[in-house]
Amino acid sequence: MAKKRQYPSQPDHLTALKLPLPPRSALAPDLQKYFGICDEKIGFLPNVLAAYSFDESKLRAFIGLYNNLMLDDSALSKLEREMIAVVVSAQNHCYYCLVAHGQAVRQMSGDPALGELLAMNYRAAKLTKKQRAMLDFAYKMTVTPDQVGEADREALRKAGHTDRAIWDIAAVAAFFNMTNRMATAVDMMPNEEYHAASR
Amino acid sequence: MAKKRQYPSQPDHLTALKLPLPPRSALAPDLQKYFGICDEKIGFLPNVLAAYSFDESKLRAFIGLYNNLMLDDSALSKLEREMIAVVVSAQNHCYYCLVAHGQAVRQMSGDPALGELLAMNYRAAKLTKKQRAMLDFAYKMTVTPDQVGEADREALRKAGHTDRAIWDIAAVAAFFNMTNRMATAVDMMPNEEYHAASR
Amino acid sequence: MAKKRQYPSQPDHLTALKLPLPPRSALAPDLQKYFGICDEKIGFLPNVLAAYSFDESKLRAFIGLYNNLMLDDSALSKLEREMIAVVVSAQNHCYYCLVAHGQAVRQMSGDPALGELLAMNYRAAKLTKKQRAMLDFAYKMTVTPDQVGEADREALRKAGHTDRAIWDIAAVAAFFNMTNRMATAVDMMPNEEYHAASR
Amino acid sequence: MAKKRQYPSQPDHLTALKLPLPPRSALAPDLQKYFGICDEKIGFLPNVLAAYSFDESKLRAFIGLYNNLMLDDSALSKLEREMIAVVVSAQNHCYYCLVAHGQAVRQMSGDPALGELLAMNYRAAKLTKKQRAMLDFAYKMTVTPDQVGEADREALRKAGHTDRAIWDIAAVAAFFNMTNRMATAVDMMPNEEYHAASR
Amino acid sequence: MAKKRQYPSQPDHLTALKLPLPPRSALAPDLQKYFGICDEKIGFLPNVLAAYSFDESKLRAFIGLYNNLMLDDSALSKLEREMIAVVVSAQNHCYYCLVAHGQAVRQMSGDPALGELLAMNYRAAKLTKKQRAMLDFAYKMTVTPDQVGEADREALRKAGHTDRAIWDIAAVAAFFNMTNRMATAVDMMPNEEYHAASR
Amino acid sequence: MAKKRQYPSQPDHLTALKLPLPPRSALAPDLQKYFGICDEKIGFLPNVLAAYSFDESKLRAFIGLYNNLMLDDSALSKLEREMIAVVVSAQNHCYYCLVAHGQAVRQMSGDPALGELLAMNYRAAKLTKKQRAMLDFAYKMTVTPDQVGEADREALRKAGHTDRAIWDIAAVAAFFNMTNRMATAVDMMPNEEYHAASR
Repeated sequence: MAKKRQYPSQPDHLTALKLPLPPRSALAPDLQKYFGICDEKIGFLPNVLAAYSFDESKLRAFIGLYNNLMLDDSALSKLEREMIAVVVSAQNHCYYCLVAHGQAVRQMSGDPALGELLAMNYRAAKLTKKQRAMLDFAYKMTVTPDQVGEADREALRKAGHTDRAIWDIAAVAAFFNMTNRMATAVDMMPNEEYHAASR
Repeated sequence: MAKKRQYPSQPDHLTALKLPLPPRSALAPDLQKYFGICDEKIGFLPNVLAAYSFDESKLRAFIGLYNNLMLDDSALSKLEREMIAVVVSAQNHCYYCLVAHGQAVRQMSGDPALGELLAMNYRAAKLTKKQRAMLDFAYKMTVTPDQVGEADREALRKAGHTDRAIWDIAAVAAFFNMTNRMATAVDMMPNEEYHAASR
Repeated sequence: MAKKRQYPSQPDHLTALKLPLPPRSALAPDLQKYFGICDEKIGFLPNVLAAYSFDESKLRAFIGLYNNLMLDDSALSKLEREMIAVVVSAQNHCYYCLVAHGQAVRQMSGDPALGELLAMNYRAAKLTKKQRAMLDFAYKMTVTPDQVGEADREALRKAGHTDRAIWDIAAVAAFFNMTNRMATAVDMMPNEEYHAASR
Repeated sequence: MAKKRQYPSQPDHLTALKLPLPPRSALAPDLQKYFGICDEKIGFLPNVLAAYSFDESKLRAFIGLYNNLMLDDSALSKLEREMIAVVVSAQNHCYYCLVAHGQAVRQMSGDPALGELLAMNYRAAKLTKKQRAMLDFAYKMTVTPDQVGEADREALRKAGHTDRAIWDIAAVAAFFNMTNRMATAVDMMPNEEYHAASR
Repeated sequence: MAKKRQYPSQPDHLTALKLPLPPRSALAPDLQKYFGICDEKIGFLPNVLAAYSFDESKLRAFIGLYNNLMLDDSALSKLEREMIAVVVSAQNHCYYCLVAHGQAVRQMSGDPALGELLAMNYRAAKLTKKQRAMLDFAYKMTVTPDQVGEADREALRKAGHTDRAIWDIAAVAAFFNMTNRMATAVDMMPNEEYHAASR
Repeated sequence: MAKKRQYPSQPDHLTALKLPLPPRSALAPDLQKYFGICDEKIGFLPNVLAAYSFDESKLRAFIGLYNNLMLDDSALSKLEREMIAVVVSAQNHCYYCLVAHGQAVRQMSGDPALGELLAMNYRAAKLTKKQRAMLDFAYKMTVTPDQVGEADREALRKAGHTDRAIWDIAAVAAFFNMTNRMATAVDMMPNEEYHAASR
C-alpha cells in the first residue's frame, strides 16, 4: 500500500533541497506581518512562501509579482485569474499549484466540481465563450508558446476581451508557467490543509 | 462567472449524443439487479453504466471486461489497479475517469491527498519502488506505447513484479486508454456525488 | 542479415511473458467450439486468442467485447470497423494489430493496396468524405484524446454520420487503443499466415 | 466502400501538381537508357523517376544522390540501407517510400514479414544488436534530430560500427527524411506492382 | 522581397496591443532614474521595460524579480544565467529574448559564436560538464517540466552544483519560461541595437 | 566560463568522425576549380564541402543536388530559398545550417535582423502573405510531414504560388530536412567567418 505522506504545514526545510528555512521570528517585521495576514486570511502559511523565505530578497520579489498579478487591479476577476492558474498547471502537471489554486477556484466559485474540471480537462467544463477563449489562449501559450500570434489575439478580442485583458491573461498564464516549473524543480509540497478545503 | 453545472445523477440521455437511455425498469432483470447492487455499494449508479444501457449487449460486454480487470483475482490489489486507472487518465486528461477513480483511490487508501497526487503528477507521490515501477510502466504504455519493450518488462521484474503481474498491469493500463477515449469522445459526465466523497 | 523469425501458429507460451498457455483440449467445451469456428473461418486460431486462453475468464471478457464491437450490429460496415482498427494501430505502431487487421481490410475490400495505405498513411487514400471524417475522428481520439470535443462530433454529423455512428466509431477507435497497447506490452506476435493472405 | 484506386504505372502527370511529365521518348538518350535498365531490373519504371522527369536536371541530381547512397560502395549492405529507408519512412508515415522500400526489404531479405515489421514497428523485429543500434540511430535522427550527439555515435561504435559506417547510416537516414517529405508534399503514388511483389 | 522592418527604439505603443506607453517624463522619478541607468549601461532602454511602463506597479514588480535573478548574488555567474536564458528561449522560440540575451552572452563571454550556438543548439557547444549539466536541467524544465525529479537534481549535484545552485538554475530557467511566453503573447520586439552589438 | 572554440576554417578531419579529409591538392582538377570558385565568391570553403571531400563521388552528388536546388532556375528567388533553409533548420535546431544560411539571408536581404528572425521564430517577421504561406508550408513539412496534404497545397495556390513553385518550395524544405540531420549526426561545425559576416 502507498505510504501515508506527512507534509508539515510549516516546513523547516524544502523536501528536496537542503536550504535551511529560517523561523518566522527571524524575518524582517514587515514580512512577519505579511505572513500573519496569510495565517488570518488563508488559515495557514502557504508552503511556497515558507520556501522563498530562505532569502528575503527573493521572497519580496516573488510576493511583489504574485500580488500584482493575482490580487491587484486587472481586467479579469480574481476567479478568472485562478482559473487560468489551474489550466496552465494542469498542462504542466504541477502538483503544488494544482492543489493550491484548485482550492482557490473551489472557494471563489462556490462550485467544487469546477476546480476539478479545470485541473483535469477544462474543455469538459461549461463556460461562457469569453472564459473559454481566455483558457484556450492560456493553454496555447503553455503548450506551443512559439505559435501564439495575432490570430490568437484576435480570437480573444472577438470573444469580448480588451487589449488590456489580453495583457492580463498573458501575464497570468506566463507567471504560472514559471511557478509550475519552479515548484516541480525544487519539489515544493502543498500544505495538507488545501485538500479538504472548499469541497 | 462560471455557470454552475447541473448533471443529473440518473441521466436520461448522454450529454453530447442523442441516444435515448431507457428507464432502469425496462432493462433485463439481471441488469436491474446489478444496478441495484451498484446503488447499494456505491450509493448511486455510475453514469458510465447508464450510458452503456442504451444497448444491453454493449452494457454486458463492458461490465464483463470491467469486472474481470478491476474486481476479479489479480496480482495487483484493488487499490493498485485504481492507482493505474488514475495515472493513465491523468495523461489522457479524462475528466470522467479522474473524478470516479480518483475517488476510489481516496476511499481505498484512506489518504485523500493520494488521489489528487496521482491525478496531478504521480512522480510527486511517495511510493514504494514496486508501485513506482508499476506506474512508470503504465505511463509509458499511455504516452509512447510503441516504445514499450523488453527493457520495460525487465524493469518491472527487477522491482519485484511477476510475469502475471506484468500482464495485469498492462491490461489495466490498456483498459483505461480505451475508457478515457470513449468517455471523452461521447462526453460522459461523472456523477456529482463523487466530488465530495472520501475527502 | 536479419535472422528469419519463427512464430509457431499455435504458441504454447507468450513470447515475452512466462505464462503457460493450455492446450486447446483443456479449455471449456464452448471455448473449444469457438476456437474451432475460428479455424474454419480464418484458417487458423489468431494468436491473441491463444494468448488470452491462459485465463478463461479473461478470454471470455475479451471475446465478449471484441465480438460486440467488430461483428454485431453497428452503424458501420465491418470493413469500416477494420479501417478504423488499422488507422488507430498505425499511430500506435502496433505490429500485431496492423498485420491482422491490415489483412482483414485487404480481404474485405478486395483492394490489397488499401490495407497498406491505411497502415501507412490514411491521408493518401482516396476515400469518401464520410470515411475520411470517420478516420480523422479516430485519429484524433488516438493522438490527442483530450482535445476531442463537440466540434469533432459536429464534423462527423456534417459528413453524414448519425449519433449512433459516432458512438460506434468512438467505441472501435477506443478499443484498438486498448488492444494496441496490450499487444505491444506483452509482445504478442501475429500468426505468420496473415502476411501472404489477400495480396 | 472505399473506391478502388487507379494509379497508372507510367503517369503522365503527378497526382496533385499540374506539372506535365514528358513521354520517355522526349528524354535525353542516356536517361532513356537508364529508364530502360529500370524496366529490366525492377520490371517497371518507379513513379518517383517519372515524377522528376519533368525537369532533366532535377532528375539527374536525384539519380546521382540516390545511386551513390543506395547502390554504390558502403559500409552497409544494400539490405541494411533498405531497412533504414523503411524505418525512417515509417516514422514519417510516407506511403510511397514504405511501399517501394518495404518491397525491397521483402525481396532482398527473402523474408516477407521483415518488410512489414520494419514498416510497422522495428522494435518488434528480431535483429542483431548491430542492426538494432543502426535502426535506433536512424530513428532518433528522424524524430529528434537536434538531440543526436556523441553518446549516440558511441552507441553505434560499441555495437560494432566504424566511423565510416556512422557516416553511411546517417546519410541514408537523412536522405529518406528528404524523400519522405518530398513524396508526401507533392503526393507521389507508388506503382501498383509493388504491392503483390515478394510476398 | 521581405519588407525592411522598422522598430522604433523607444516605442510609444506595443506592436500588437493598443496599450499607450507614457513618455518617460511622466514616470515616477525613481523609475526615470532607473531608465537613465539603462541608457548609460546598455546604450538604450530595452523595449521590455518600455512595454511594462504602461503600468508602474507592473514595471516595478518585473524589475524587482529580474534584478534579483539576473543581477543579485547567485551561485551562478552572470554569464551562466544569460546562458540559461538563451537555451530556454531557444526551445520556446522567443524572438525578443533570443536577440537580447544572445547579445548578452556574446558580450559577457567575448565569444560571439557562443551566443549563436546556445540560441541554435547548445548541444553543439564545447562546455564544461558543470555547464552542460546546468543547461540540460534548464532544457528539461522547459520541455518536460512534469518529468523533472530527484534524478535530475542528483545529476546537477554530481556535476558539482550545490543545492543553492540548483535553486538558482531552476529560478532562472523558470523565469524565462515566463518572459518568453509574455514577450510572444504580446508581440514584444527587441531594440534594433542588439543585432549588431558584440559581434 | 565557456571555453573558446577553435574551428579551423579548413579542417583536416571532421570533429566527431575519424574520416581523414584529403588536402585540396589531392582532389580531381574540376573539384579543385569548384573549391577555388567558393574561395572567391564566399571568401572561404564551406566546411560542409570539406567534409564531403573524403569521398569524391559523395561530394559530386551533394554539389549536384545543392546547386540544382539553390542556384539553378526556380520559381523562387535565391533569397526565398535561403529563407526556407533557415526556417527548416530552426525547427531541427541545426547549428551548421543556421549559421551558414542565416548569414546568406542577412547578405541577400541586406537586413541583418531578418536572418535572426527566421532563425528564431519566423512568425515574428513581417512578411508578405506569399512568403508567409511558403514558410508555413516548409514548417509543416518539417514538423508533421505526414499531415501535409491537398489543403496545404491549396493554401499555397491561394497565396499566389504556381504548381511549379509548390514543387520548388517542397524540394528546398525537404533538402534541408536531410542536410540538417546529416550535419548534426556527424557534428559538422560551420566556418567561423560566417558569424561576423553581413551584420
